[in-house]
Amino acid sequence: MNIREATQADWPAIWPIFHDIVSTGDTYAYKVDTTKEQAEAIWLSAPRKTYVVEEGGAILGTYYIKTNQSGPGSHICNCGYMVSSAARGKGLATSMCEHSQTIALELGYKGMQFNFVASSNKGAISLWNKQGFKTVGRLPGAFNHPVEGYIDALVMFKWLEQPE
Amino acid sequence: MNIREATQADWPAIWPIFHDIVSTGDTYAYKVDTTKEQAEAIWLSAPRKTYVVEEGGAILGTYYIKTNQSGPGSHICNCGYMVSSAARGKGLATSMCEHSQTIALELGYKGMQFNFVASSNKGAISLWNKQGFKTVGRLPGAFNHPVEGYIDALVMFKWLEQPE
Repeated sequence: MNIREATQADWPAIWPIFHDIVSTGDTYAYKVDTTKEQAEAIWLSAPRKTYVVEEGGAILGTYYIKTNQSGPGSHICNCGYMVSSAARGKGLATSMCEHSQTIALELGYKGMQFNFVASSNKGAISLWNKQGFKTVGRLPGAFNHPVEGYIDALVMFKWLEQPE
Repeated sequence: MNIREATQADWPAIWPIFHDIVSTGDTYAYKVDTTKEQAEAIWLSAPRKTYVVEEGGAILGTYYIKTNQSGPGSHICNCGYMVSSAARGKGLATSMCEHSQTIALELGYKGMQFNFVASSNKGAISLWNKQGFKTVGRLPGAFNHPVEGYIDALVMFKWLEQPE
C-alpha cells in the first residue's frame, strides 16, 4: 500500500469512489448529484493537496488537505477522506488520517478540523477519536440525512502540536 | 435608514468598510492584506446576496448571506456583518442581523450559523446572544489574534424555525 500525491491522471479512478460515497447523501456536504466536473474541482483542484492510496495499480482511497479558514484561521487545516467500498475494513482510513497529520505539519499547519461530521457516521467519529480528535461543537439539526432527517453535525478538532 | 440589496455600483463605498475591519485582523477570517479585487469576490460576488445599510446617500453597513454547507447542509445559511467605524453604536448590527434572518427565511433557509467568531469579539457575541444565537462549538486556539495570540473561536447557531 502506497500513499502518494494525486495527479490529474488519477481522476478517472478517484471519481467512482467520490460518486459512490457522495450520491448516498449520508456523509459529505456535497450535492448528491455532484457532476464529475464539479467533483474534480472540489476534490482535486480546490484543495491545497490531494493524495491517493494505491495498491497493485488500483486506487483504493483518497484524501485532500486544505486551509480551513483564511487569515487569522490559516494555521488550521481541513481534510476529507474517502475509501473505495471494495477496500473498507482494511485500515485505509486510519492510514490516510495518520498520513494527513504528518503532511499537515510539513505544510506548517498547527491543527486539523473537521467542520461537518454527520452524527450518524459512527465509524468515522470512532476512528477520529482514536486519532486524538475531540468533538468541539455540535450543530443542531444541521445535517439533512436521507433516512434520519435533520440530525446533528459534529465539529471535530485536534491540535497537531501545542499552541506556542 | 434603509437596508437594500447591494449592486456593483456600491462596491467603492463598501470597500473602505471592509478594508478598515479586515486589515486589523482581529475579527474576520480573511487575510489582513486582502486586496480590493479579492474583497469584491468575497463579499459581493461569492455570496448568495449582499445588502447595504444606506442613510442620506451614505453606506453605513453591509452584510452578506450565503449557503453554509452544500448538499445535506444546504438548509443552513451563513452571514457576515460589517458596520462603518463612523456608524457604530447606533444599532446597525442589530438591524442587519434581524433583517438577515427575515431574508434567510424568505430564501428557504431553516437556520443560521456563524462558523468562526473570535472569542475576543465580545460585542458581536453579546449581540448575537440577544438575537437568540447559541454557542454550539468552541475551536481551541483556532483564531490567531494580532494581540492576544491563539485564542478560541466560537461556532454560533440559531434555528430560524423548528425542525420539521
